[in-house]
Amino acid sequence: MNLYDRFSHANILLSAFLFSICLSAQSADLLTEKQRFVIKDFKTTSGVVLPEVQVGWESYGKLNANKDNVIVISHYLAGTSHAAGKYSPDDKRAGYWDYIIGPGKAVDTDKFFVISTDSLSNAQTKNPKVFTTGPFSIDPSTGRPYGTKFPVVTVRDFVNTQYALLKSLGVTKIHATMGASMGSHQSLEWANAYPDMVERVISVIGAGEANVWSKADIGRWANEIQNDPNWNNGDYYDGPYPIDGITRAMWGMLFSVYHGHFLDQKLKTSIDKDRGPWEDITAKFEVTTWLEKIAASRASVFDPNAILYLARSCQLWRLGHGDSLAEGIKPIKAKILLLPAKHDEILGSYMTKQFYNALLMQNKRVQYEEIVGPWGHMDGIYAIGTKTKEIEAFLNTD
Amino acid sequence: MNLYDRFSHANILLSAFLFSICLSAQSADLLTEKQRFVIKDFKTTSGVVLPEVQVGWESYGKLNANKDNVIVISHYLAGTSHAAGKYSPDDKRAGYWDYIIGPGKAVDTDKFFVISTDSLSNAQTKNPKVFTTGPFSIDPSTGRPYGTKFPVVTVRDFVNTQYALLKSLGVTKIHATMGASMGSHQSLEWANAYPDMVERVISVIGAGEANVWSKADIGRWANEIQNDPNWNNGDYYDGPYPIDGITRAMWGMLFSVYHGHFLDQKLKTSIDKDRGPWEDITAKFEVTTWLEKIAASRASVFDPNAILYLARSCQLWRLGHGDSLAEGIKPIKAKILLLPAKHDEILGSYMTKQFYNALLMQNKRVQYEEIVGPWGHMDGIYAIGTKTKEIEAFLNTD
Repeated sequence: MNLYDRFSHANILLSAFLFSICLSAQSADLLTEKQRFVIKDFKTTSGVVLPEVQVGWESYGKLNANKDNVIVISHYLAGTSHAAGKYSPDDKRAGYWDYIIGPGKAVDTDKFFVISTDSLSNAQTKNPKVFTTGPFSIDPSTGRPYGTKFPVVTVRDFVNTQYALLKSLGVTKIHATMGASMGSHQSLEWANAYPDMVERVISVIGAGEANVWSKADIGRWANEIQNDPNWNNGDYYDGPYPIDGITRAMWGMLFSVYHGHFLDQKLKTSIDKDRGPWEDITAKFEVTTWLEKIAASRASVFDPNAILYLARSCQLWRLGHGDSLAEGIKPIKAKILLLPAKHDEILGSYMTKQFYNALLMQNKRVQYEEIVGPWGHMDGIYAIGTKTKEIEAFLNTD
Repeated sequence: MNLYDRFSHANILLSAFLFSICLSAQSADLLTEKQRFVIKDFKTTSGVVLPEVQVGWESYGKLNANKDNVIVISHYLAGTSHAAGKYSPDDKRAGYWDYIIGPGKAVDTDKFFVISTDSLSNAQTKNPKVFTTGPFSIDPSTGRPYGTKFPVVTVRDFVNTQYALLKSLGVTKIHATMGASMGSHQSLEWANAYPDMVERVISVIGAGEANVWSKADIGRWANEIQNDPNWNNGDYYDGPYPIDGITRAMWGMLFSVYHGHFLDQKLKTSIDKDRGPWEDITAKFEVTTWLEKIAASRASVFDPNAILYLARSCQLWRLGHGDSLAEGIKPIKAKILLLPAKHDEILGSYMTKQFYNALLMQNKRVQYEEIVGPWGHMDGIYAIGTKTKEIEAFLNTD
């Protein structure tokens, strides 16, 4: 079993019953392929010029003659551009939002050209379909991986790679941008960065900015990587791998995205039978070791530096990246659908509500609908099916 | 500045403006002293006999002739028995619940004999007023600290030390038990363990049991201690101190007890001006380093093993410690006032609501009132003043 299979296995383990609904609704027909887009001399918002940036992308549906049926999907921190369909009919699983993207679905690929890209610094470096540029890429000036010499990149930079790709395809109008979590940030940033281009935004489990708590919460798990001596200030590609740090980071990230309801439902019965912790102060509870196993699988797929950079982009997140959220809202012309998850504990509905109110204060067109599911943050992926009607209606009205 | 002063300083730093209300209401008159109670051959619920257990306690008000005006206060994990008053008029701060305990206050010491004890394994071992037995105590069979040979102790064990103390005072009826967080667990356990003795329970920021998520959440910071090689399987009293582990544990504990609202209010302005994280992937956000400073102060006051044992008692918490919560509720005769904090993120109001419903299912007399404050879990301490009327009414009716 190679590393990528182990990751998939972990996901399946984690999602044992979660995907049962989604799997039954998968469209066997929708096939896609990973494509490569190359940008020369990409200038980051921090002012650094990267001689070459590669971006992985895929699409579902067809671009119409007017090139005005485009929906741009951005992925969450641990994800890739594989939002729907399969690369091959033999794939065990389809993309993460296959439940809502496809022929005749809420995001109807019979009607829309849906395009999905990898974020810069995409972390799934052991996934054979991932090659998007990041700190693990070779710095042409040294012939070695960038490591921490890679510039800090922001959500705006991710959007700018998408912009370059769309420009290369001749697209000047976007019907909608859409994404969950870190993908929500991108979908919103589009409406600030290119307000005349974006007509609609669907922000799933997102907010207008990372608050102080979020910065600490993300740092809590991301800094685990830096705490591992093998991280070696990001220069570990020729030396021992910071496996402890990345595993602990993945543990923290996993734990953050699930609500207590879900863990209770999954593990309560077996934990009640476990007498170890009653007798031995060093014994760990099953929930901890269960998460450790999944974290270990993820750790072997994700590049630690990439995770650090993605985490940082989320810590720095504020619509428009200016001095205030209000300022970032000002240029927006798109209408916005906010889909927070009611039980989300990291980008909680209270943060989305604050953003909603800030949008209303500036008379922006915005609709707020809570996803109610058992998983917490992950309801934005697993329970998205409860909002198909709202998504479909939002996409098909002006 | 000795260690204890440094801890106080950290608390003051943390609470700069938090205590302004409370301090103004402090009763200069209420003085108390720490007393010592010794139990010989204390048998833990796990069946281990400890040859000697010392318990620190203090009281406010006077025991009446009928010995039926007793209110038992239990403290939260990081606290001590110092719930109200001062040890000396020169003390900078009074006990943590001084706002509600004292002459003429909600818990009226003109009327009630309020008794407060240290939990077993009290962690403030560098506090000169703390001497309660724990893993840091000398094991008479070896002449060295118990370390991990100390038995796993539960909330029931804490209650049993209180029971022994009350018995020594000739008390057979308790007007009310009361506590916050880990103290809430104790106040509730009393009603299961000694149902004919306890008339009322006030459970503040508590729930009926630790759910699976709680076990992992507590383990997430507590296990930091075990992850420090200097912890040396609990045998560090003669060697290097596991300062990194305990500091990281304190960081996690601190972070858990505050809601995002509070951190945002406290640090937003300065964080917005900090350009470090925009330019350097290794830079930490101010919120992280701010918490690190406070965590370091606490780390120097708390014994790491003691924290591990207290954390475990909270992980193992279930009313009655039996096979189900319903079974633990059954014997209760006391009426119960539940005071969860609406924005609590570790013993959240959803957990208290589940417990409330479980109590109603068995026709128990129970009242549920949410504390609404900006601090999260800590609202049970800092915002308790918003529930003085409810507490007073509950204590003064049958």
